Amino acid sequence: MTNVAVLVGSLRKESFSRKVAKAFAALTPDLTFEFLDIGAVSYFNQDLEATPPADWTALRERIAAADAILFVTAEYNRSVPGVLKNAIDVASRPYGQGALMGKPAAIISTSIGAIGGFGANHHLRQSLCFLNMPVLEQPEAYIGGTGSLFDDAGELTNDGTRDFLVSFGKSFEKHIARNKG
Amino acid sequence: MTNVAVLVGSLRKESFSRKVAKAFAALTPDLTFEFLDIGAVSYFNQDLEATPPADWTALRERIAAADAILFVTAEYNRSVPGVLKNAIDVASRPYGQGALMGKPAAIISTSIGAIGGFGANHHLRQSLCFLNMPVLEQPEAYIGGTGSLFDDAGELTNDGTRDFLVSFGKSFEKHIARNKG
Amino acid sequence: MTNVAVLVGSLRKESFSRKVAKAFAALTPDLTFEFLDIGAVSYFNQDLEATPPADWTALRERIAAADAILFVTAEYNRSVPGVLKNAIDVASRPYGQGALMGKPAAIISTSIGAIGGFGANHHLRQSLCFLNMPVLEQPEAYIGGTGSLFDDAGELTNDGTRDFLVSFGKSFEKHIARNKG
Amino acid sequence: MTNVAVLVGSLRKESFSRKVAKAFAALTPDLTFEFLDIGAVSYFNQDLEATPPADWTALRERIAAADAILFVTAEYNRSVPGVLKNAIDVASRPYGQGALMGKPAAIISTSIGAIGGFGANHHLRQSLCFLNMPVLEQPEAYIGGTGSLFDDAGELTNDGTRDFLVSFGKSFEKHIARNKG
Repeated sequence: MTNVAVLVGSLRKESFSRKVAKAFAALTPDLTFEFLDIGAVSYFNQDLEATPPADWTALRERIAAADAILFVTAEYNRSVPGVLKNAIDVASRPYGQGALMGKPAAIISTSIGAIGGFGANHHLRQSLCFLNMPVLEQPEAYIGGTGSLFDDAGELTNDGTRDFLVSFGKSFEKHIARNKG
Repeated sequence: MTNVAVLVGSLRKESFSRKVAKAFAALTPDLTFEFLDIGAVSYFNQDLEATPPADWTALRERIAAADAILFVTAEYNRSVPGVLKNAIDVASRPYGQGALMGKPAAIISTSIGAIGGFGANHHLRQSLCFLNMPVLEQPEAYIGGTGSLFDDAGELTNDGTRDFLVSFGKSFEKHIARNKG
Repeated sequence: MTNVAVLVGSLRKESFSRKVAKAFAALTPDLTFEFLDIGAVSYFNQDLEATPPADWTALRERIAAADAILFVTAEYNRSVPGVLKNAIDVASRPYGQGALMGKPAAIISTSIGAIGGFGANHHLRQSLCFLNMPVLEQPEAYIGGTGSLFDDAGELTNDGTRDFLVSFGKSFEKHIARNKG
Repeated sequence: MTNVAVLVGSLRKESFSRKVAKAFAALTPDLTFEFLDIGAVSYFNQDLEATPPADWTALRERIAAADAILFVTAEYNRSVPGVLKNAIDVASRPYGQGALMGKPAAIISTSIGAIGGFGANHHLRQSLCFLNMPVLEQPEAYIGGTGSLFDDAGELTNDGTRDFLVSFGKSFEKHIARNKG
């Protein structure tokens, strides 16, 4: 099985990004998804590199074990949420040997408004380029209007979004196959 | 006196960004600088907004008390370090009333290599635009080659950089005067 | 009167960006607008700087005569249309003395889809920062769904957009007053 | 043979970007390079799409015939030169069927100063993502200090740059092999 580590860029329990990620995972049965807890990862600090905290090591090991990475993120202040960026910073180190290096990836950005997290999506791409991670380019995934996509039980009820996520999953699978290993 | 809150985008004790910030503060006597401890700020999490942690409140109060904000930052993975972005996320909330809103600001980005943190510098600008913060545009401050600018005691020994920082300070003062209040 | 030079980032005759710009001008009677013809501006080429083509000189003179600049632009390939970027390149020269230098500005980006030209909007900001042009930060103007905002005569029929443009104009006027001269 | 279309983002005859591109081509004998004349391409204008000008058709045909695309570009106003962006705009159309769609690519950005065209490099990546073009991620190519890399005859005399370009070429070849067809 192809194993995908999922990093959700929001700590809120009822986060729409998490709901989108869960819906996507359910709609993509040919991939296995493991959700990582980025809120448990302490700040990157170069002074700690010689003896890394256990939370860094845990994150790095889960990412190293994954075949691919999925980022599902809200936009905070027109960019990547700090908590998600820190997880990337931790998993990008040690320099040149970070667990993220070279892993195929995909990005789904979300927003309550119309813009769909465009700013977070592309800032994230700039970081992943530095880590030599091939990121799925098309289709781009800007999921706007997240407030009206789910029912009270957290189930995705929007048919257009469901169809899009199914198709996005197929593209992601091909992207992983082309770029892994 | 004009009071400037300083956010340094690196937690390393001997951080070059911190040294640059200290040197800049010493060379700009007409402004008062307060260095904030962004490593003490816990992750933004919307679930905590009703009863914010004490570390959020402390950061927000220090920023609210400042006339202007100075960001001095390294580049992590071609973007803003997660720890700095999180401080911005915390100080940008509650939505529409964040302590950062409208404060005049300046950015100094740094790198050991030649590029001077360009990626971090401009990603940061995109966030500050959203917070309606007028950011000093010229001169831009990309401080590269930081490894050779300081002596063992951490004193800035490069004359060109010293002259640049003096001039940058004068521009920042005018920028604050034009945009504050 | 305060005179605003308008650069529309599309050459199509029935361009939605042009319609938005026209509607905005009509709704902002306290400013005077002059629409510049960027399609008439030949490519920047440093070899021609000593004896600049007449079309360069014409553009530079119109911009030099303006108190402020308004950019209304579609997004081409997630960035600024080449024809608009070339006009900026021409009006940014000679180095350090370009007609655009320091002029207050505002950006309205448009799209037929939902995203409202976010990519063009912020790439443009990065260029204008280099030219020391204070750009209105809030409100941001991302006008999406342009295909349904106008009637057959090209009149703006969407009330929400009309209200937004009126309010945007008031903010732009204050921005010009604070930053001009 | 693998055929690479080269787009140089500067029209100046003695352009450093062109010199870098020529040096790179000479150092990469396993690829064939064709330099396209982007200065001959008229502005994209949607009104002309039904009957495209001959210069558009010529550009599109050369790009369609190429296995991969190399962009070598200076930075104008912290972004992509307008003349280069227009060539991309023309070759990206008709919508969804542009000649550039899906072609593997690489970017070399250049500058006389230290920063190496970082702003142009990453703005360009945002556009190429939209066109589903896999772009070589590592090594990144930021060629700074171009004023001192060549002798009077235009020959590359800097050994470090030569070694870098050789290595960059090998990475580009692998990238094309993985992503073409």
